[in-house]
Amino acid sequence: MNSCTVTFLPYDRVVTVPRGESLIRAALHAGVHINASCGGEGVCGKCRVILEKGNIEGGLSERLKPEETERGYRLACLCKVVEDVVVRVPIESSMDKSVMNLQVTPRRTATIQQPDFESLKEKGLFIPPVEKIFLSLPSPDATNNMPDVTRLIEMLKHQANEHRLELTLPVIRKLPGLLRSHDFQVTVTVTRPVRDDGKNLILNVQGGDTTAANYAVAVDIGTTTVYGQLIDLASGRCLAEAGDFNGQISYGEDVISRIIYAEKAGGLEKLHEVVVGTLNGVLQKIIAAAKVDAEDISTITFAGNTTMTQLFLKIDPRNIRRAPYVPVATLYPPLTAADVGIRINDHAIALVYPQVSSFVGGDIVAGVMGSGLYRQDELTLFLDIGTNAELVVGNKEWLACTACSAGPAFEGGGIEFGMRAAKGAIEDFSIDPVTYEPMIFTIGDVRPKGICGSGLITMAAVMFEHGVINNRGKFNRDHGTPRIRETNGVWEYVLAWKEETQLDRDIVLTEPDLDNLIRAKGAIYSGCMTLLEEVGLSLDAVERIILAGGFGSYIDLEKAMTIGLLPEIDPDRVTFIGNGSLMGARMSSLTNRIRKDVVTVTAKMTNFELSETPSYMDHYIAAMFLPHTEIEKFPRLKARMEARQKK
Amino acid sequence: MNSCTVTFLPYDRVVTVPRGESLIRAALHAGVHINASCGGEGVCGKCRVILEKGNIEGGLSERLKPEETERGYRLACLCKVVEDVVVRVPIESSMDKSVMNLQVTPRRTATIQQPDFESLKEKGLFIPPVEKIFLSLPSPDATNNMPDVTRLIEMLKHQANEHRLELTLPVIRKLPGLLRSHDFQVTVTVTRPVRDDGKNLILNVQGGDTTAANYAVAVDIGTTTVYGQLIDLASGRCLAEAGDFNGQISYGEDVISRIIYAEKAGGLEKLHEVVVGTLNGVLQKIIAAAKVDAEDISTITFAGNTTMTQLFLKIDPRNIRRAPYVPVATLYPPLTAADVGIRINDHAIALVYPQVSSFVGGDIVAGVMGSGLYRQDELTLFLDIGTNAELVVGNKEWLACTACSAGPAFEGGGIEFGMRAAKGAIEDFSIDPVTYEPMIFTIGDVRPKGICGSGLITMAAVMFEHGVINNRGKFNRDHGTPRIRETNGVWEYVLAWKEETQLDRDIVLTEPDLDNLIRAKGAIYSGCMTLLEEVGLSLDAVERIILAGGFGSYIDLEKAMTIGLLPEIDPDRVTFIGNGSLMGARMSSLTNRIRKDVVTVTAKMTNFELSETPSYMDHYIAAMFLPHTEIEKFPRLKARMEARQKK
Repeated sequence: MNSCTVTFLPYDRVVTVPRGESLIRAALHAGVHINASCGGEGVCGKCRVILEKGNIEGGLSERLKPEETERGYRLACLCKVVEDVVVRVPIESSMDKSVMNLQVTPRRTATIQQPDFESLKEKGLFIPPVEKIFLSLPSPDATNNMPDVTRLIEMLKHQANEHRLELTLPVIRKLPGLLRSHDFQVTVTVTRPVRDDGKNLILNVQGGDTTAANYAVAVDIGTTTVYGQLIDLASGRCLAEAGDFNGQISYGEDVISRIIYAEKAGGLEKLHEVVVGTLNGVLQKIIAAAKVDAEDISTITFAGNTTMTQLFLKIDPRNIRRAPYVPVATLYPPLTAADVGIRINDHAIALVYPQVSSFVGGDIVAGVMGSGLYRQDELTLFLDIGTNAELVVGNKEWLACTACSAGPAFEGGGIEFGMRAAKGAIEDFSIDPVTYEPMIFTIGDVRPKGICGSGLITMAAVMFEHGVINNRGKFNRDHGTPRIRETNGVWEYVLAWKEETQLDRDIVLTEPDLDNLIRAKGAIYSGCMTLLEEVGLSLDAVERIILAGGFGSYIDLEKAMTIGLLPEIDPDRVTFIGNGSLMGARMSSLTNRIRKDVVTVTAKMTNFELSETPSYMDHYIAAMFLPHTEIEKFPRLKARMEARQKK
Repeated sequence: MNSCTVTFLPYDRVVTVPRGESLIRAALHAGVHINASCGGEGVCGKCRVILEKGNIEGGLSERLKPEETERGYRLACLCKVVEDVVVRVPIESSMDKSVMNLQVTPRRTATIQQPDFESLKEKGLFIPPVEKIFLSLPSPDATNNMPDVTRLIEMLKHQANEHRLELTLPVIRKLPGLLRSHDFQVTVTVTRPVRDDGKNLILNVQGGDTTAANYAVAVDIGTTTVYGQLIDLASGRCLAEAGDFNGQISYGEDVISRIIYAEKAGGLEKLHEVVVGTLNGVLQKIIAAAKVDAEDISTITFAGNTTMTQLFLKIDPRNIRRAPYVPVATLYPPLTAADVGIRINDHAIALVYPQVSSFVGGDIVAGVMGSGLYRQDELTLFLDIGTNAELVVGNKEWLACTACSAGPAFEGGGIEFGMRAAKGAIEDFSIDPVTYEPMIFTIGDVRPKGICGSGLITMAAVMFEHGVINNRGKFNRDHGTPRIRETNGVWEYVLAWKEETQLDRDIVLTEPDLDNLIRAKGAIYSGCMTLLEEVGLSLDAVERIILAGGFGSYIDLEKAMTIGLLPEIDPDRVTFIGNGSLMGARMSSLTNRIRKDVVTVTAKMTNFELSETPSYMDHYIAAMFLPHTEIEKFPRLKARMEARQKK
């Protein structure tokens, strides 16, 4: 019995949760509100429930009187569900059943899509771009004294049916000694061409049979963080993964400040060196963790945004930030890792994901490739949300893309108690529809110290549906709860009182915070609308959404639709791919098909500059409401709002 | 009047010479013997002639009595021919007219073949492998903000009809700055592919219009000497040429000792460094002499023997000298000059001429390509004579090759007074058929100090035809001239008495010298025979001979045929190409056709190892005579010998 059902009375809501789940999180998933504001540390003592049927683990506390404990009272945040149970939430007398049904939608996150290695194999697409072939060559004698290279190539033709072969000077240099020290038994590493009429390049030659050891590395060069994965090309498995902050952070937090630094004398060289240093560090970590020989790594794929890619390749990025925003290139030529300062070995080839434009870079192309969007029939919206949001719409026939500046709200920037998604960040939220008391959840189930992006979205959605804020993000001043107050002329909602937090003051959500959120979501939504309009479609046409980027997995989809961050579609049709850049880089290591397709896909991705699209500003202004000036675009929300107004 | 006729009495021989030619050299060309042993310094006073008609410049000497001068006597070596003249050679009373006709054949050297740029142009084959194209690109604006690289490539398509383009990372790095500092007016340097389906690689980009400055470099990496030529790809002209001793000489004189040195720890790296040092020095010289910008050199072609090539590329050559004599490769992959340590600029591409085998290297392939042998209908014998002689036979249909060790005799090695072809070397020779007095010619017309290869061949031929030596190279002991003598048990001929030389002793030609010469010519001739026999032909089938190598231009062809170094064919059908390696490298700079053809030509060149061919030793033994055991193979010589015997 690995899952259990929990029935919440008096709401009659039943939810199935994994065995071991905390009871309060089960309530969240069921859409049941329980007051709670200490993040699950059992400090506030508010999340009292009564166990009516079944046994539960934990939940006892000094904050409960002995007689309460006797009567079945528990603190929900301390309870673990270990079997089917029935619990009752004590509710205020003023709340009746009709109010209960006004609960907002249950929490619902996106289905997580992972690199689908098995399906690649089934489709015959598991074609690593680099293969190892063992050869047993005949020794030369007087009747057969062909050159070493010719011998190797002839046997590759005869023993392995390999043709159109070419090799490098370092391989030629190694060959004479290696052949003779290994009795003419060698393993060659061959790279497959990107074009069908290209050459099979012999990258390396090793003594004896090393075919079992063939590895690739996938790297995401993020503005903030660099991630690397070490992939076993025999099994397709990721043997090790590591990340580190991009060392360039010291020279500027965002791409624009990096570009400005790069324009100084020696700046470009410095930023190149620094990120290459970070990359080499990450590579050392994963090589050590996977316990492989660096010599056996033959391919490394890099994906990053346009600025990160140009800085990595030591290409002046100054034109990226200046109208008309010209990047240096879309496709980059074949390189070796050593060419760009990567110290793994001398022969590994480097694939650098192509860019579409100055603001739709290789990270997005990698996401489009890795998620399989470019092979899909359905019209799909791909969203990578960060300070900058990149949007792609299309399917296997066509693709259009753009980028917009969402501002840092989703990463905690410009929010009074905003923080990144780290321990202590409030990531989920519910509100009592009568008392306006909150139920908060923090990352790590500790006392709160701030609000992360997904928490912010949920708070805005829940407060909007309950009428705590209006469609402009302003608090209803008449609720009569001490949680809604004016401080120094700014209206705010108290999420947690000082003593319930890790801080020395109350944690609040302010109107300016909500304003920033609305601007951010409005920029993204209007970007999507403009992009679709440019290709003659509307948001109704979107059949599927793919979310990429750091925080997409935590977003409560219905809440994101409620505030108008995402268009309203069936949450089943939303998938989350996490770090799309890393995923694309990894998929390129597993199938040469992607390396072939990426050339045409990049050419197909029509880029729109929103600044050059007059309708964008109109769409933006219309999107500066919750969820939007036209609520008709959100029929499910509209229905819920109408039901609520009837009460 | 740039040429004059000289009539020599009593022989009635008339010869046409350029105005200003020395009278004694005119005699040599006419096949007229005049005693002379001081090399033209007027010291020996033997070369007395009587001016019978016309005027001559110089020729007066204290060695002539006033009354002799009065009667028209002159020293031939001091005379310059400035108009048509008739001169009489005073001859011994014992010599009659019949003896005069026993003079050997007049001096006859090979026609010199030079890179035929005009004919390349006429045939439409002047297709330099690297071209410069000027482009005027539209500036980017909001409606056209394609990446810089895309803009460049699109305009190359539209303005220059260039397709299948690829470019390098350094070009990408230069592009953004260069475009904007030169108002989007740039010149790109494009390399043509070797294969028709290959890519046109953009090697470099420069601001403004630099199409007029497009240069190539051709390099011969000889074991002894390195030569470089700087070629203007607009006119096809050689703007500068320079040579230097290969710095590796300090580590061994010949390829075998270099290989042995390369086998020591650090030896390979040292020899690589040293030759690259020599090459960089030669390149600096020609760049300075031609006053070009090194940035405008886009291609450099290297040709050298297999050992020189492997050392240049830092590839262990140890298997070259060990049975079964395995070189590392035939073809080498595309490289940049910088890849192999050449410091011209970062982008120039390097073509390294392919090898056929350990002993038929890129210098020979270059000779075959540069001379056009591989495009000819006639069955041609290509001979590159040095310490090692390389032989190629064939035509446009097929090619076979081999190499044999001739020993150093032709370069002066193993010859008592042997020396390289330098000032003071006896390079030509005639003998008085009655008195056996010599007429010698030295390089630079100075007193002799040794004998060079072409002199040695002529001496042996002349002495053989006059019966001074027999067909085993032994002196006729009964001539009764003090010039033929036995010293310490060795028979020898005195070419110049001590006082006529630059040395402190007589300069002699010894029987061991002749023995070495016979071995050397025997090795080459039997190599040719074996090679032809292996392909089912005999030497009679040879329709054309191409001579390559340092000393071929000086060889008196009839003399070389007389001693059996060359098969007897019409001297008009012998051409000399000089440094075939350099010629091939230069031709590759002028026409991409050669770069395309060399792949198939190299594959076509069937190599025979003489050591693995049992008949070679039989042929060698048969060739250890003057001219050969079978004189029937030399019909012209046989006729002359028979005529002589009738006297």
